[in-house]
Amino acid sequence: MAERTHQQAEGHYFENEPPPKDLKTTVTLAREFINRHADEGRRVVLVTSGGTTVPLETHTVRYIDNFSAGTRGATSAEYFLENGYAVVFLHRQFSLLPFSRHYSHNTRSFLDFMKEEDDRVVVDQQHQEEMLEVLRQYTQVKREGRLLILSFVTITEYLWDLREVAKLMQPLGPKAIFYLAAAVSDFFVPRDRMVEHKIQSNEEFSLTADDENGNGNGRPPAARTEGRKLIIDLEPVPKFLKSLVDGWAPEGMIVSFKLETDPSILVKKAQYSLQKYAHHLVIGNLLLTRKWEVVFVSAMDGEKWIRVPRHRRTKSFSGIEALVGAADPTSKKEQEADSSLMTEHSIPHGEPICEIESLIIPEIEEMHTKFIQQTQARNGA
Amino acid sequence: MAERTHQQAEGHYFENEPPPKDLKTTVTLAREFINRHADEGRRVVLVTSGGTTVPLETHTVRYIDNFSAGTRGATSAEYFLENGYAVVFLHRQFSLLPFSRHYSHNTRSFLDFMKEEDDRVVVDQQHQEEMLEVLRQYTQVKREGRLLILSFVTITEYLWDLREVAKLMQPLGPKAIFYLAAAVSDFFVPRDRMVEHKIQSNEEFSLTADDENGNGNGRPPAARTEGRKLIIDLEPVPKFLKSLVDGWAPEGMIVSFKLETDPSILVKKAQYSLQKYAHHLVIGNLLLTRKWEVVFVSAMDGEKWIRVPRHRRTKSFSGIEALVGAADPTSKKEQEADSSLMTEHSIPHGEPICEIESLIIPEIEEMHTKFIQQTQARNGA
Repeated sequence: MAERTHQQAEGHYFENEPPPKDLKTTVTLAREFINRHADEGRRVVLVTSGGTTVPLETHTVRYIDNFSAGTRGATSAEYFLENGYAVVFLHRQFSLLPFSRHYSHNTRSFLDFMKEEDDRVVVDQQHQEEMLEVLRQYTQVKREGRLLILSFVTITEYLWDLREVAKLMQPLGPKAIFYLAAAVSDFFVPRDRMVEHKIQSNEEFSLTADDENGNGNGRPPAARTEGRKLIIDLEPVPKFLKSLVDGWAPEGMIVSFKLETDPSILVKKAQYSLQKYAHHLVIGNLLLTRKWEVVFVSAMDGEKWIRVPRHRRTKSFSGIEALVGAADPTSKKEQEADSSLMTEHSIPHGEPICEIESLIIPEIEEMHTKFIQQTQARNGA
Repeated sequence: MAERTHQQAEGHYFENEPPPKDLKTTVTLAREFINRHADEGRRVVLVTSGGTTVPLETHTVRYIDNFSAGTRGATSAEYFLENGYAVVFLHRQFSLLPFSRHYSHNTRSFLDFMKEEDDRVVVDQQHQEEMLEVLRQYTQVKREGRLLILSFVTITEYLWDLREVAKLMQPLGPKAIFYLAAAVSDFFVPRDRMVEHKIQSNEEFSLTADDENGNGNGRPPAARTEGRKLIIDLEPVPKFLKSLVDGWAPEGMIVSFKLETDPSILVKKAQYSLQKYAHHLVIGNLLLTRKWEVVFVSAMDGEKWIRVPRHRRTKSFSGIEALVGAADPTSKKEQEADSSLMTEHSIPHGEPICEIESLIIPEIEEMHTKFIQQTQARNGA
């Protein structure tokens, strides 16, 4: 019964929320890419990245967004590529991209890396070495045709794209991974409750809202002014993870993320999600420690923390290092023991920063290998 | 009485909403910059750009945003610089910047402009000429110290920065312009109604909300789940334009923007705003034609449309060209006459795209000259 209700909710969603304008192009590109790599026997990962928007008006002036620069997704995509995967990178428009992420979304302008030399623009000496390495990786991946970049803005665009790409990935069987790093809204404004025009803030001009209140279906608009206040009531998005596991991608390995801010509920929520959807791996992370530690929760390996060694943690991130371990009851002692050593002088210098995704992806690759073997054994048996 | 109420609302806002962490740095940088240019007798413009966010949680996972890539602000800043102004560019973090805007926020990765040549990274031949021109402009502006880049994310950071920078600009007298192109939220979540942690979407985990409901002050949180819905009620932001005109910047020329989606109310709303705040210029624009036409509404010149000639309009923008003129009753005939000519073949080819800001800024410079003369005449009398 619950199953039927979910299918109905999903059906209702896609019947009522229009597909993105570029869906045909997306499908054409994705089909060619996926089939080519399927033919070559390569593993393919769909990496979703960045936040989805929930527009409040059809002609959108205001929207609700989910915080994400796209760092997790863009960085993970690079390590999947390094590990031989073909990557479909479905990202929020203008969020970070693999490779170019090293030079965007920072406080400097891209032109600050450039200088004029003999009437030509070149990269300045200071940045040559690192950029050359990045450019070579990027060029190689492009030459091999192993990276497909797709984009979304709204929650509805995201869900349409996810559904269509997932279906196209079915021929990959267990060689497909879904690595769902995007920050997807749990709530949305249904099309039939969305006002057309910008919501007016002063009462003199909000009279027109009366015309829209009806919308022909008697349901009040989801966003509306009441007196001097703006009231928004949002409806739940159907649980697309359930659709993915049960319908769109029955054979692929599915990795979801759980971002929390409260350490006391992180592991519980990750376990709850794994039980509820019965997929393969939940990666739990806290907003304020997400670049230094994550927890893997899976049926295969139980609960497993992955942590960047203290002296190799990036500091270019406004996290709170004292919170590392706070969501992990087993780490309490280690944490206290560590903290006694934690003085400026005891930190070894000169060791390079370690991106946590460089630890996450090899772990996943190993699980994926087991996953493929198990599926093959089952099918062979 | 209304005045007193507004001042109270402003006072309450700044007493309750904490300043941005980097406010001191902002003030130090802005003071040095403004004083230097004031000493040199230069005109200074504060350009605000991009959208403000309204966080729903203290540890922000969800927020409300106002649509803006920052194109209007970044482009305008370049033309102000070209016209000799010093520019304080107060922009939403990661939104478009003057000069680098030509190479960011497009569908290509910045690395697509680069190639390897003799083990070095250089800009490829195809983009050399244009990028050299942009880099030269940028380098000159930096050398002359005429561009100060500041950033905000939230509505509260924006208002604090605006207030402090405006006060620092008072010594400039009428030589200051405030060019308020940022898309600023009319609504916000007061700090004392903001929940600390991520709002939980499923009922199993939302029990903690009870603890937060009280907040010690008996006011319900502004964002909360009710059953399976997310309810948000936002309070009005005090009218900072009034504060700017009456208090923070009594002598500067103030230019505000009015973005609408409904052509039938655009001019009325611009006029209403000009009457209400008694500042100097409202620039009205429609979401779907904003790169092709704007309307100036001022006491000085009345209502005046500025339009890019049809054959020089950018097409790299998902606007609706048929809406050009729709908010301007006087243009109806012209529009109809034009549309009869509007076939693919009749568009002259080869003329360069004209950015509407290249028409807007010289108009404003002219008004600013008159404004300075009038102030000087008044003060001399």
